Amino acid sequence: MRKEPGSRYYVEGIEVPETPEPRSEQEQWTQTEYVGKPRPRVDAYERVSGSAVYPSDTYLPRMLYGAILRCPHPHAVVKGVDTSEAEKMPGVRTVISAFTPDDRATQPHSELIHTTLFSTRCRYEGETVAAVAAETPYQAWDAVRAIQVDYDVLPFVSDERRALDPDAPKVHDEGNQVAPTDTYERGDVAQGFAEADVVLEEIYRAECEIHTPMELHGCVAKWDGDSLTVWESTQGVYNIQAGLAGALGLPLSKVRVVGHYMGGGFGSKLQAGKYTIIAALLAKKAARPVKLTLTREETYLAVGNRPASNMRLKAGVKQDGTLTALEYVGSGASGGYQAGGTSLLDWLVRDLYTCPNVRTELTNIYVNAGPARPMRGPGHPQCAWALDQMMDALAEAIGMDPVELRLKNVPTVSQARGGSPYTTTGLKQCLEEGAAAFRWKETRAAIAREGNTNHLRRGVGMAGGLWAGGAGGPPSTVIIKLFSDGSVNLNMGASDIGTGTKTVMAMVAAEELSVDPDAIQIEHADTGTTQFATASGGSKTVPTEAPAVRAAALDVKRQLLDLAAGEMGVEASGLTLKDGKVVSIDDPSQEREITALRSLRRRRSITGVGYRGPNPQGKAVNPFAAQFCEVEVNTRTGEVKILRFLAAHDSGRVMNRLTYQNQVFGGITMGIGLAMTEARVLDGDQTGKMVNKNWHDYKLPTALDVPADMTCVPIELEDPEANSVGAKGLGEPATIPTAAAVANAVYHATGVRITNTPITPMRLAQALADARKGE
Amino acid sequence: MRKEPGSRYYVEGIEVPETPEPRSEQEQWTQTEYVGKPRPRVDAYERVSGSAVYPSDTYLPRMLYGAILRCPHPHAVVKGVDTSEAEKMPGVRTVISAFTPDDRATQPHSELIHTTLFSTRCRYEGETVAAVAAETPYQAWDAVRAIQVDYDVLPFVSDERRALDPDAPKVHDEGNQVAPTDTYERGDVAQGFAEADVVLEEIYRAECEIHTPMELHGCVAKWDGDSLTVWESTQGVYNIQAGLAGALGLPLSKVRVVGHYMGGGFGSKLQAGKYTIIAALLAKKAARPVKLTLTREETYLAVGNRPASNMRLKAGVKQDGTLTALEYVGSGASGGYQAGGTSLLDWLVRDLYTCPNVRTELTNIYVNAGPARPMRGPGHPQCAWALDQMMDALAEAIGMDPVELRLKNVPTVSQARGGSPYTTTGLKQCLEEGAAAFRWKETRAAIAREGNTNHLRRGVGMAGGLWAGGAGGPPSTVIIKLFSDGSVNLNMGASDIGTGTKTVMAMVAAEELSVDPDAIQIEHADTGTTQFATASGGSKTVPTEAPAVRAAALDVKRQLLDLAAGEMGVEASGLTLKDGKVVSIDDPSQEREITALRSLRRRRSITGVGYRGPNPQGKAVNPFAAQFCEVEVNTRTGEVKILRFLAAHDSGRVMNRLTYQNQVFGGITMGIGLAMTEARVLDGDQTGKMVNKNWHDYKLPTALDVPADMTCVPIELEDPEANSVGAKGLGEPATIPTAAAVANAVYHATGVRITNTPITPMRLAQALADARKGE
Repeated sequence: MRKEPGSRYYVEGIEVPETPEPRSEQEQWTQTEYVGKPRPRVDAYERVSGSAVYPSDTYLPRMLYGAILRCPHPHAVVKGVDTSEAEKMPGVRTVISAFTPDDRATQPHSELIHTTLFSTRCRYEGETVAAVAAETPYQAWDAVRAIQVDYDVLPFVSDERRALDPDAPKVHDEGNQVAPTDTYERGDVAQGFAEADVVLEEIYRAECEIHTPMELHGCVAKWDGDSLTVWESTQGVYNIQAGLAGALGLPLSKVRVVGHYMGGGFGSKLQAGKYTIIAALLAKKAARPVKLTLTREETYLAVGNRPASNMRLKAGVKQDGTLTALEYVGSGASGGYQAGGTSLLDWLVRDLYTCPNVRTELTNIYVNAGPARPMRGPGHPQCAWALDQMMDALAEAIGMDPVELRLKNVPTVSQARGGSPYTTTGLKQCLEEGAAAFRWKETRAAIAREGNTNHLRRGVGMAGGLWAGGAGGPPSTVIIKLFSDGSVNLNMGASDIGTGTKTVMAMVAAEELSVDPDAIQIEHADTGTTQFATASGGSKTVPTEAPAVRAAALDVKRQLLDLAAGEMGVEASGLTLKDGKVVSIDDPSQEREITALRSLRRRRSITGVGYRGPNPQGKAVNPFAAQFCEVEVNTRTGEVKILRFLAAHDSGRVMNRLTYQNQVFGGITMGIGLAMTEARVLDGDQTGKMVNKNWHDYKLPTALDVPADMTCVPIELEDPEANSVGAKGLGEPATIPTAAAVANAVYHATGVRITNTPITPMRLAQALADARKGE
Repeated sequence: MRKEPGSRYYVEGIEVPETPEPRSEQEQWTQTEYVGKPRPRVDAYERVSGSAVYPSDTYLPRMLYGAILRCPHPHAVVKGVDTSEAEKMPGVRTVISAFTPDDRATQPHSELIHTTLFSTRCRYEGETVAAVAAETPYQAWDAVRAIQVDYDVLPFVSDERRALDPDAPKVHDEGNQVAPTDTYERGDVAQGFAEADVVLEEIYRAECEIHTPMELHGCVAKWDGDSLTVWESTQGVYNIQAGLAGALGLPLSKVRVVGHYMGGGFGSKLQAGKYTIIAALLAKKAARPVKLTLTREETYLAVGNRPASNMRLKAGVKQDGTLTALEYVGSGASGGYQAGGTSLLDWLVRDLYTCPNVRTELTNIYVNAGPARPMRGPGHPQCAWALDQMMDALAEAIGMDPVELRLKNVPTVSQARGGSPYTTTGLKQCLEEGAAAFRWKETRAAIAREGNTNHLRRGVGMAGGLWAGGAGGPPSTVIIKLFSDGSVNLNMGASDIGTGTKTVMAMVAAEELSVDPDAIQIEHADTGTTQFATASGGSKTVPTEAPAVRAAALDVKRQLLDLAAGEMGVEASGLTLKDGKVVSIDDPSQEREITALRSLRRRRSITGVGYRGPNPQGKAVNPFAAQFCEVEVNTRTGEVKILRFLAAHDSGRVMNRLTYQNQVFGGITMGIGLAMTEARVLDGDQTGKMVNKNWHDYKLPTALDVPADMTCVPIELEDPEANSVGAKGLGEPATIPTAAAVANAVYHATGVRITNTPITPMRLAQALADARKGE
């Protein structure tokens, strides 16, 4: 059986973690003062005032600027690099390439298997060929343009659907299939199909999306003797540290990575990029700090993507709605190299709905294009695009309401994990409460009554979801320091990737210590000053870090109450904290201000340490979801207007009702991008180059594409087994069902099913025309 | 009984600390790999290459520059401050004074009792009147000069010897005596003098010295919303944090103070200065970061001094060398305010030599001059100047060798602490081994043989010493993080004030973890990222911090060996660490690389926490010393050439033989300044102003004033009771006996005793002329 994506895709090269300390046996919160309430971000002022210093805002004295020369061809041998002209140009301080006599430049690079930092055979447009550091960015770019490269241009293949053809150009000499096809099987699929009343089969395709974070990828690198400090826009400073230490042969202690703010990553900023290591090498060689920020074009080409996925899905269902068999054959584009895991996942087919007979096949294929990387819910939105459109089609085929069909197949255990029970399974509630809040039945009835005869046609659609990660887990260590005036400092290694992690963690600490979360100062995301935390990705930051924060706060609380008990002449077990005071649980009139504790003044501070305990044995911890949407389709133009969206999510405890909602709305927005607008376009016939590598031509959804009417319905099931705060992940689940729900709504409105993302007006208009022709 | 100076002078306002955790029961080191060996500083590269960023090297984007208008009169009422012209000047962004409508500007300031941040009655030349922030330092200074102040100049008194006269101008309306005279008495002094064979009495005086660190006092202040970050040149970031939080009414968590490097403090950088708070106020008002660096002149006037001390000492001795009584009446100049403790200390009289009958009186007196502050061994070098010259005179009077007289009176217990035994008393060894290494007897015999008839006369002198502090003590918390590759990060709150703290702490951690100290990265002196440590002062940094570092390292080691034991299938108690490997104690062939530990790779890191345990109950922990010097006096010119110095110090375990020696040589150099060159000169008659407030006129000892021949003789007594590393303090002891030893050597050479520092050529020539007249 394959590994789970939660560990496989987000902590590359790291084995399944063990726990350092027994799990906190603390009871779940019943009543809360801060946790679960809506709260603006603790760093809102810094973020909106511009005083927040992002890595891209980092300017150091005597800093140089780096720039990278990238291969303009999708496939080429680099026969030589002549940097002599570039080296003579004004302001240029150093130039490196695969032809520079420097061991490191040609060493294998862990970011991408089978490649080196600078390539002599480039397998995608944008692969690194040389780099420059100069006094100004313009001088660096001018020098890059002055480097002469002798390319031997090779034939290329851009489309993974043709890359396994015998006559296709070889991206790698060994062949274009990345690894043997990965298969999974349970039950007897043939038997299942035989038992079905209806069997449907369809081919779906999701186009390649690019992460496109607001903040460009980049870093600043600075050496002090043999110690390296890097300010990087990253989701995980400890991953960057490990990547740099490995690539440069340094001890981990000599590599400090700082990433206090970052403007979006979505999975593309989990590891040290080649640019990170290049910046460090340039800085070492020039003996000056170097800032290297990629251009938008470079990020479209080289820092990852959600790969194109082709999915053939066959499903059998009985007339009563019982699923009998699922067969899923997927193939996806790995790009020129393998980077951070496969490009495909089949988890939804295996586990979202109860089905005894399941067979899946996944094949990853090299093409001459930028390498794939995990992107928000890797594999899942594509898989949902197939599975939940298929569920819709099955429901129609057996004349059942789509929600009812899903309710019929709500799982009670994780089938893919050998029947392990879930700590909680909120899919039923997501479907029922979501449908009720959306007025699903009423709206469908109204649309049916009205008839869809106008050229503006309404439709509703929905989809279910599950995220195969989200449980979080050790290791994570958090330190909390309480000062003698009762104010608090929270020290954690985790990055806040824009999801409000700092705010949630402050709320958790505040809950135990009964202080205002805004008064908690946070030090985070710095390998030099914090304890280890895994990267923020995989929807695991809250389930991983919040229990460690809670444990650290409880450690502080225990020590503080011990001090207070000694001074007050009572038992510590009879005391608790309330609004900056130590109070007796039984006699609230008996209280003492924290600031009045002499023994605390003497100690000056209390240090508490908290560890993330182990996950429950033999249990599955997964978030579930159901999303509903209503669209209006202009059947003359093919334009789709999304009227409203409703998202019901079972992610365990809602930590911050405000950022929870923000995250759900952000996930829906991103899902609308997949459904409606986003696709990498390669000129597969002529040049093999990407033709829409900018914000103008690559269509991100804008405010006009997103409905004003978005509703979030949290399904909060008590989940004491999941972890000590009862939270499961939310970030990725929020975008998983979205695109499928839109496609189902479009089908409901028009009777036309679009199986290939995105549902552009042209594609839909063509399909409508084809359907009319067919009538 | 008065409190001990260790706690009283260095942790202002903090009660005697309690321990947070039981003391580590770890045995003392017997064999060491790193501790005790000579080792260059771990930050040597940064320091010599200029890449070390001192607070004065801190430049932030959009930073303004602050400047302070200071009162030019020693005593004046400020009737009004007109800032209207200054506010209109180019680049000026904000101006504040006591007449600015801002609560904080006129609030009492904790730095100095009875004063406000900006004064309306100035009691010393240099008191703060107004401050400006502008785009450039020059614009700020121009604006300061444009501020119009209406002063009502008052009569002043500069000399504490005249300040208690009934007709002296009153510095404070309540009178010029700071507090009632402080007295101490044990035994029966009158009886003691009656029992003596010889009774001598002398008046000694030590002139006021200024700390004069290389790096000027200053800081950079920056606000993010309601959070303040200050980069300050300080000996203790947590003291600065407390001072700022108190002055500005902020929670401690909202004040982050960073002080990674600092260029000397010597006691003048223990607390937040007025300038620190002014910088924060200017930054708040201007909504821009503000850098405020004092000029050298300002530091001479306003940041503290070792106050002028007048000491009348009467001593009785029996013919056999037994001391029978000591009576000491001291008075000192507190300056215009009280700042950080008294200006006097009598500890040496009370405790250095055995004497049953002791009486002391200390009186602190206000004068119109800059306030006193602790300066390296506060009170002690002055007290030694009196006591050890007196010991010399007594020895001569009874015809005994000065070393012998001191050996006769070596104490076995701390008499001033009610007879508490010392954990170790190395004074005897300092005297004996120092005298032997110096060839004391042989040199004295040779000088006696040669006769002192030439105008160039040789002499030798010595003095004993004890530092009343130096024990260190809780609270201190240190965190050590071991990465999965065996490299180490050390996190401590303590500042490295130039004494090599970082290096010593790395050596301690390295000793337990068996790693190269240079591979340990250190995060320190930052209230936002470290745990609490007391300020680096009072010769207590090593005795306080090193045990906490050791405890943290042992905590890491314990966890690491537990992991390894599990993997190796042995008992953890049978394992230890050696050169990056876990090895079996009994069977060294059984070993495993730390990097090969799977369980460590899974955990990614180990976090160890260490606390400084309590001091031994009922015991005194003090460092002892004896210093010896040889001089050559030109009796024609009064010039003294110091030929050689030898310092024997009992400071417990030598942690780093290289920085130990550096610190001793630095102490001797500073003591030579007191003896020979340094004195604040006030124009007491006409203007009351300081006339030598610059490096040209204030005579610091230069390389030419310090002998090339300096020797360090460590007296290393095992001291397991002192603390878990067996170290006592060294920084202050190194300068305590120096000046007295020089004076005794000058007497030995010339027969003339100079009782008033410094021994300038003019003063010595005059004394020699007087002596010739008297013959």
